[in-house]
Amino acid sequence: MALDSRYGSVILLDHMGSDQRVIEAARLCWDSFDKSTPESDNRLIKHLLIKEHKTPFEHVVFTFKIRCPIFVARQWMRHRIGSFCERSLRYCTSKREFYNPFTVGSVNYNEYKLMCNGSYESYLLFIDNEVNQETARMVLPLSIMTEFMWTVNLSSLMNFLKLRLDKSAQHEIREFAKHILEVVTEILPVTMKSFEQEILYK
Amino acid sequence: MALDSRYGSVILLDHMGSDQRVIEAARLCWDSFDKSTPESDNRLIKHLLIKEHKTPFEHVVFTFKIRCPIFVARQWMRHRIGSFCERSLRYCTSKREFYNPFTVGSVNYNEYKLMCNGSYESYLLFIDNEVNQETARMVLPLSIMTEFMWTVNLSSLMNFLKLRLDKSAQHEIREFAKHILEVVTEILPVTMKSFEQEILYK
Amino acid sequence: MALDSRYGSVILLDHMGSDQRVIEAARLCWDSFDKSTPESDNRLIKHLLIKEHKTPFEHVVFTFKIRCPIFVARQWMRHRIGSFCERSLRYCTSKREFYNPFTVGSVNYNEYKLMCNGSYESYLLFIDNEVNQETARMVLPLSIMTEFMWTVNLSSLMNFLKLRLDKSAQHEIREFAKHILEVVTEILPVTMKSFEQEILYK
Amino acid sequence: MALDSRYGSVILLDHMGSDQRVIEAARLCWDSFDKSTPESDNRLIKHLLIKEHKTPFEHVVFTFKIRCPIFVARQWMRHRIGSFCERSLRYCTSKREFYNPFTVGSVNYNEYKLMCNGSYESYLLFIDNEVNQETARMVLPLSIMTEFMWTVNLSSLMNFLKLRLDKSAQHEIREFAKHILEVVTEILPVTMKSFEQEILYK
Repeated sequence: MALDSRYGSVILLDHMGSDQRVIEAARLCWDSFDKSTPESDNRLIKHLLIKEHKTPFEHVVFTFKIRCPIFVARQWMRHRIGSFCERSLRYCTSKREFYNPFTVGSVNYNEYKLMCNGSYESYLLFIDNEVNQETARMVLPLSIMTEFMWTVNLSSLMNFLKLRLDKSAQHEIREFAKHILEVVTEILPVTMKSFEQEILYK
Repeated sequence: MALDSRYGSVILLDHMGSDQRVIEAARLCWDSFDKSTPESDNRLIKHLLIKEHKTPFEHVVFTFKIRCPIFVARQWMRHRIGSFCERSLRYCTSKREFYNPFTVGSVNYNEYKLMCNGSYESYLLFIDNEVNQETARMVLPLSIMTEFMWTVNLSSLMNFLKLRLDKSAQHEIREFAKHILEVVTEILPVTMKSFEQEILYK
Repeated sequence: MALDSRYGSVILLDHMGSDQRVIEAARLCWDSFDKSTPESDNRLIKHLLIKEHKTPFEHVVFTFKIRCPIFVARQWMRHRIGSFCERSLRYCTSKREFYNPFTVGSVNYNEYKLMCNGSYESYLLFIDNEVNQETARMVLPLSIMTEFMWTVNLSSLMNFLKLRLDKSAQHEIREFAKHILEVVTEILPVTMKSFEQEILYK
Repeated sequence: MALDSRYGSVILLDHMGSDQRVIEAARLCWDSFDKSTPESDNRLIKHLLIKEHKTPFEHVVFTFKIRCPIFVARQWMRHRIGSFCERSLRYCTSKREFYNPFTVGSVNYNEYKLMCNGSYESYLLFIDNEVNQETARMVLPLSIMTEFMWTVNLSSLMNFLKLRLDKSAQHEIREFAKHILEVVTEILPVTMKSFEQEILYK
């Protein structure tokens, strides 16, 4: 299930490691490579998840390119174990792209679009008036879209998923988290199945 | 020199450690407590700074309460070695407080105020229309004020100061950094004098 | 209950914050200072622990001075969120102080003492022969005592306690963890009581 | 130039990203993909290094398998930004493999070998006497070999190289650092050449 493009986008740029790397890292600790079978590997991964032995999962790493509104990016970047490079509105001119919540009713929705567009017009006006970009952006709304590269290891990513798939998380970031869970599950089917069973739906 | 209140505010809530703690941590490594004199301690601190032996500075910790616009907070929170608790606009209603750049000329300034107030009026309208707060906030501008508690060790704080006092940093966060440098210099006069000499103005 | 001095020692050098700081940090997020009563504060702390909202606990910080054998220090320093300054055997001569396990039976115990003392005699001999300290130390056993300063926030400390008080942790580090739990409970009685109930003995 | 096998070994298990990923991450911030030429990319990398804009380098990640003596591993694991999974002497029996410094003169060298072997014999004796492994290991010397998996991003790796290639670093870890510099230079020739010029030999 793809992410609805109105929320933004998630592109997996690169990744390193798989279920096998997690097993390899864990079996190095116990020097138990000879005990590796599909069943015992599966049990080992469950054990690591339940006992919170997180380091073996840190050797699997992903790089994503994310496009999302700033209020979502702000929640995202509170996750400190990971690397972010974001398009800077000090040096780039913002595009006229903003998120519109599609669950607020049509009257509110129209007011939303009006306000966002009005802010953007002011932004352009300031730039025309030679206000520099870093100052002009102050008038842009939290719904304006941003873009960043995110590199994160699987342990930190599982923490992100746990917190951001929770019912108490905001709807928009949950949609991103759901999609990322799918992408990652394709790469690590064994680990992520256990993660869902032992952590998410426990 | 106090921070101009138009930028926001910085309150030092608590701190732990002083010049003496840095010395103590460093002298523990070398077991050289007997060599401590004001002159040798001063040289030791310079040596630590120049050779980037950063851990002794990590045992001095500060807790600040910061009030600043969101575009400043976003730059601030990119500094991952430190702890942040921020007022959440998912659960609180934003106050009508926003930063206005006072260097953009009076025509632009008036347009700014107009746009910010207009956004805030829409925000209130959405809340009246029973749009929930976390959704309504999307229309608020990056100039809206936020508030957070920041706990940071001296090593990470010196990195913050180095990057955010740099000429290439944005004017607004430089004003905060200047003020924090003053506050911290009162607490660690020896260390911060060496920091200015060996790192900032080198 | 003090730590048996045969294991080493734990000295609390400094700390910053208390139960009240945790409450203050959490209530800043929700702007709910007016709801603070002893009962609601207690419930709030339980809620933070259960839902793994860890950042409010990061604003409470401790500095300890620890003396322990190297095999314990190695386990300790795997906890990356925290600051360590350790006495360096590159620059200091090691003292003749090593940990002797008192549960191995008297025959083994005598062999232990013999081997440790033999290693230390070789170490001294090398130094006499003008082998430099950093090389000579290579012959010292993992039971040799070391000393370090540790600064850690309460969130990371609770993670340390959870893992190192677990039955599967090694006996020696569990003794240190038990003692640290006592020290910290005196400073934050409300938080640590909830931590025991909701996390440790769940 | 391969690492002398007496020190241990370094195996690159995996890596993610290249010079191009650094450029891509940096150009995302400035939205300057259209300005990319070999010359301007080269200048950009130098600029990032000199101004300490470290995040673009964090999107390149390496996984190594390292074999080295414990006194080297202890220095290595002080580098907190990175992931380690180490063979555990709680669960595995140590092999009779230890590092012998080959610069101490033959008399000392023989004493070294004698002591290390003696410690190992005691270790085996304890295990025969049903002392558990985690306790028996306490008699093993700091020269005993260990093995770990290390996942680290390029920014943290450059910090490791800067500190551990320094003249003041211990000989043994410098040999590892030299070899790792070579391995990484093959993967990122442009970045590492600039790193040598602008950071290492400045």
